[in-house]
Amino acid sequence: MVRLIALYNQPDDPAAFDAHYRDVHAPIVRRYPNLRGVRLTTADGLGGRPSPFYLMAEMSFDSRSELDEAMASEAGRESGRDLRTFAQAGVTLFVADDAAATDA
Amino acid sequence: MVRLIALYNQPDDPAAFDAHYRDVHAPIVRRYPNLRGVRLTTADGLGGRPSPFYLMAEMSFDSRSELDEAMASEAGRESGRDLRTFAQAGVTLFVADDAAATDA
Repeated sequence: MVRLIALYNQPDDPAAFDAHYRDVHAPIVRRYPNLRGVRLTTADGLGGRPSPFYLMAEMSFDSRSELDEAMASEAGRESGRDLRTFAQAGVTLFVADDAAATDA
Repeated sequence: MVRLIALYNQPDDPAAFDAHYRDVHAPIVRRYPNLRGVRLTTADGLGGRPSPFYLMAEMSFDSRSELDEAMASEAGRESGRDLRTFAQAGVTLFVADDAAATDA
């Protein structure tokens, strides 16, 4: 399993962000080919400091090649364009290869 | 379940970082009270861009209060001090409340 992880910075207008994510972005993400699941988690701060992130979206695929196929698909390209419309506060994307994960 | 997530920026010397994490930092983390598990995942880039992060450490606890107890413990304080010795490239910490997670 690999995860595409999107970390969204704190938006200026959280309610507008939530509505756009739910009503526009999530329906695009659900159209990704090969998608195995999406987990949305709000991010909280630590030690009295606010979290740098507002929301973490973890999108699971069976393999890196299936993830890359999803990104290259019509839905993948549309989600990239949509990101630019509602994630103006910034978003950080990376891939976690859980097949290579280890326990500490 | 809640996760304390540490995202380590790309280190100048990955081999030295890996050795310190494995031999010094991980043994401290394993002493956290209430710790349910640790998953270490290397971060890969997307779309031909390098990942902003080198390593993601996900430390699981049954609840936010158990996580906070771990951070306030002797091992928690020691790990904070140790971070400053080997994570000079930067580390971002936040908490993901999986009990409140939703599927998109």
